[in-house]
Amino acid sequence: MAKKKNTDAAKRPEAHLPKGLRDIGPDELRENQAMLAKIRAVYERYGFEPLETPAFEYTEALGKFLPDQDRPNAGVFSFQEEDEQWVSLRYDLTAPLARYVAENFDKLPKPFRRYATGSVYRNEKPGPGRFRQFTQFDADTVGAESVAADAEMCMLAADTLEALGIPRGQYVVKVNNRKVLDGVMESVGLAGDGQAAKRMTVLRAIDKFDRLGDGGVRDLLGKGRKDESGDFTQGANLNDQAIETILKFVKYSVSYYEPTDSELGAGTGIYGRRKIADYQSNLNAWEKLVTDSETGKSGVQELRYMGTLFKSAGYADRIDITAEVVRGLEYYTGPVFEAELLIDAKDDSGQLVRFGSVGGGGRYDGLVERFLGTKVPATGFSIGVSRLQAALAAIGKTPAQTLGPVVILVMDKGELPSYQKMAQTLRSEGIRAEMYLGSSGMKAQMKYADKRSAPCVIIQGSDERAKGEVTIKDLIEGAKAAAAIKDNAEWKAARPAQMQVPEADLVKAVRDILARHTPDQGAA
Amino acid sequence: MAKKKNTDAAKRPEAHLPKGLRDIGPDELRENQAMLAKIRAVYERYGFEPLETPAFEYTEALGKFLPDQDRPNAGVFSFQEEDEQWVSLRYDLTAPLARYVAENFDKLPKPFRRYATGSVYRNEKPGPGRFRQFTQFDADTVGAESVAADAEMCMLAADTLEALGIPRGQYVVKVNNRKVLDGVMESVGLAGDGQAAKRMTVLRAIDKFDRLGDGGVRDLLGKGRKDESGDFTQGANLNDQAIETILKFVKYSVSYYEPTDSELGAGTGIYGRRKIADYQSNLNAWEKLVTDSETGKSGVQELRYMGTLFKSAGYADRIDITAEVVRGLEYYTGPVFEAELLIDAKDDSGQLVRFGSVGGGGRYDGLVERFLGTKVPATGFSIGVSRLQAALAAIGKTPAQTLGPVVILVMDKGELPSYQKMAQTLRSEGIRAEMYLGSSGMKAQMKYADKRSAPCVIIQGSDERAKGEVTIKDLIEGAKAAAAIKDNAEWKAARPAQMQVPEADLVKAVRDILARHTPDQGAA
Repeated sequence: MAKKKNTDAAKRPEAHLPKGLRDIGPDELRENQAMLAKIRAVYERYGFEPLETPAFEYTEALGKFLPDQDRPNAGVFSFQEEDEQWVSLRYDLTAPLARYVAENFDKLPKPFRRYATGSVYRNEKPGPGRFRQFTQFDADTVGAESVAADAEMCMLAADTLEALGIPRGQYVVKVNNRKVLDGVMESVGLAGDGQAAKRMTVLRAIDKFDRLGDGGVRDLLGKGRKDESGDFTQGANLNDQAIETILKFVKYSVSYYEPTDSELGAGTGIYGRRKIADYQSNLNAWEKLVTDSETGKSGVQELRYMGTLFKSAGYADRIDITAEVVRGLEYYTGPVFEAELLIDAKDDSGQLVRFGSVGGGGRYDGLVERFLGTKVPATGFSIGVSRLQAALAAIGKTPAQTLGPVVILVMDKGELPSYQKMAQTLRSEGIRAEMYLGSSGMKAQMKYADKRSAPCVIIQGSDERAKGEVTIKDLIEGAKAAAAIKDNAEWKAARPAQMQVPEADLVKAVRDILARHTPDQGAA
Repeated sequence: MAKKKNTDAAKRPEAHLPKGLRDIGPDELRENQAMLAKIRAVYERYGFEPLETPAFEYTEALGKFLPDQDRPNAGVFSFQEEDEQWVSLRYDLTAPLARYVAENFDKLPKPFRRYATGSVYRNEKPGPGRFRQFTQFDADTVGAESVAADAEMCMLAADTLEALGIPRGQYVVKVNNRKVLDGVMESVGLAGDGQAAKRMTVLRAIDKFDRLGDGGVRDLLGKGRKDESGDFTQGANLNDQAIETILKFVKYSVSYYEPTDSELGAGTGIYGRRKIADYQSNLNAWEKLVTDSETGKSGVQELRYMGTLFKSAGYADRIDITAEVVRGLEYYTGPVFEAELLIDAKDDSGQLVRFGSVGGGGRYDGLVERFLGTKVPATGFSIGVSRLQAALAAIGKTPAQTLGPVVILVMDKGELPSYQKMAQTLRSEGIRAEMYLGSSGMKAQMKYADKRSAPCVIIQGSDERAKGEVTIKDLIEGAKAAAAIKDNAEWKAARPAQMQVPEADLVKAVRDILARHTPDQGAA
């Protein structure tokens, strides 16, 4: 018999998820819904319309346009259809947008402005906080050549963060332009297809300025760099003058300063309240660096115009024109932007976490062209929803948790229909309620109510029934009282947080308890 | 050159979706969100907690438990991980729930009550209205043996339909019990593993009662049936007495009647306002049919108890105990239920569509047992979201459509920063607004505003600017006026639905227009 059981157990599948996937429980899900609703409201206000595309598409239609990724042929979940065509799970929301725009080009308003949110899938090595399924929230404007469309994306990013409760000064939207960097690289002799690999090395080096500082980046632009572990990274092998020029470009815009104590909130810190750079002086300097590169000059011009738009609309104190943004620079073709939180918080193990970038985007021209053969200018901004949500949770900007249901205990199985009726009565009044549906006794039922975070339980034994009454135990008040009253006899005598009311007054009595424990009421 | 272009075009991917997938546009998406929010509110009220599991799982963990499906080895999208393990897109929300419960069994409250919504994927032949990705909305109670949990699912279904605006009498929740049918089949000699195939044939035959009536089902229970196209379906080959007994069971509960004219709503019809059967007489009759089958008797007993619960909680007029429900009977192990709309509506081509079943569920015992080796009773209800949404749309129970954004026209490119500022001002007051971001002239801009369903456009040319004013064109009012005024000269003289206001009054003037066109205002 035991043997048979073992055999059975061996045949049973293991209940677990593939690596890099996770379940999301009620508190996080509710926070997520509240957050998405707030983001959605801002995007709607900006005139974007929602669109939902399927989870997978023809692999050929999605293409291999993973931004932020040096290995364009990996990272996608693919499978074959019965007719042998390959389909892939979407790895972002932009590639499906390109397919949608190309498919519906003639009937769409132009510019076409849509927002979308949903899961995307990356077949990559998962790590801590790095999942293979995660949520993005994107806005894109397709068919607008003017960088006014890019400027608007930056303002959208700022408004979204503020709508989520991040105060001005605790975030920054950073803007760069691929064209300026191209101009700088041209000016130091890195123009042309033959030098594409070298340009990529330069981009990657600049990307590390925050972490490695001047010295480290200098090494990476030159012969290369050995890190603490002894690993050697090959450099771009630029000459000293070229290195100097590129570093000048980078350093013109790095202007952090350490916050004073009074600027740091209690418990959570602003790690680098940012002095927004004077973009005019930045741009004047960059103009010199790009010398006579037409691309470079047009890039500076575009940023100058964006600066004018920020200023005129009142956003100049939130958006910084800076060379630091290099995320996806090999993918974007014009302005590039990134939204960064200037906040840190302690994680569960007490360690300080800087949240950094929570979203980014930029201008790209190639996506729709793949299908239609004509260039269609486009710009977009994408939020990493989980990262932003983690930041909001850490700094206490998430909504109050929902109270559990009122639990009606089953004291007498024969009376179950009348308990069920109580549950329906409470529900019909809009109150979260349930009758205990298991088969255990009183003690287990109370434990269940605790586990469900029930604000109160309803009890009707034969005594109460004879009197037409119910007993209501306020579990939240009760827990507080239990902490105060240590003596068991005293407890029994006082029976705090418990009352007997006529059955007809059930709804009113429960409402009173809920009102007492609803956070807004408490604050008022 | 032309040749080169052709070659390029040939290399370009086609912008289209794999069959059975679709994009969802703004109106349908907003309706969907509003609907899901209403369903969610009811499920929360019932005490269910939300849970989200990933889109795919180990194939082995999902198992092959497709309900409603005779070919359990097909229908799933699967792909191989790098470590060669197979993973599959979820085909429903119940299989992932079973994995989740098994994985977290010790720490979950018991019973465990969760709701979930999300896309599920079926690798099946798509058809009209039949997609390979669609949305379900599920509630399940795991670990409750009492059919009180099943009764609650039926009440949940009724409350959900009413919360969505379907009036009582225009829907019915039907309940059957697999055990009763098993009992009837036992009583006519169809017990035992050897007769499983025959029982399946019986189940399928009963399923067609609505469509084929007494005669057709009689054929299918007997030698077989030839349909109008000449196709022959093999029958169950039961003897006459067995056929009679089974038909008796079915017919005891079919009690439609045709509605009177006054019962039919204007425009939409109730095709069979249902007389809810007297479940007592039904059950008394069934009790005789199952003779001494213990399974059958216990099934009748369970339904009797559910009837008591419905009556006591005030749901007896919405829930019908009837033998008609056979959906998934080979999958469920106890009570089975189905929510059906008794409404029809004309589709786009004027054809009458009956919506029928919009959700169903029942009791199942095997799912968690697969992992843990012990039986864990469970019951659930699942809504087919798209079908329900289509029904709501057809009968006009969807929310009013969102107005498009106010569009600020670009009359003078040099003034773009001030137009952008207007957009930001409107947005900061919570008004949907955007500056036109394309590069076309006035006429195309007006066309764009129309296409975006803009309630109004804002115009500031040099004249208005000199006076510090803006012109606001009310497009909705304008369209009405245009229909009334045919003469062009008269139109120009009147310039209806157009006004000039100081720039400082922009927000107030736009608000007035929006108030005029917001459906609720119109109704008041």
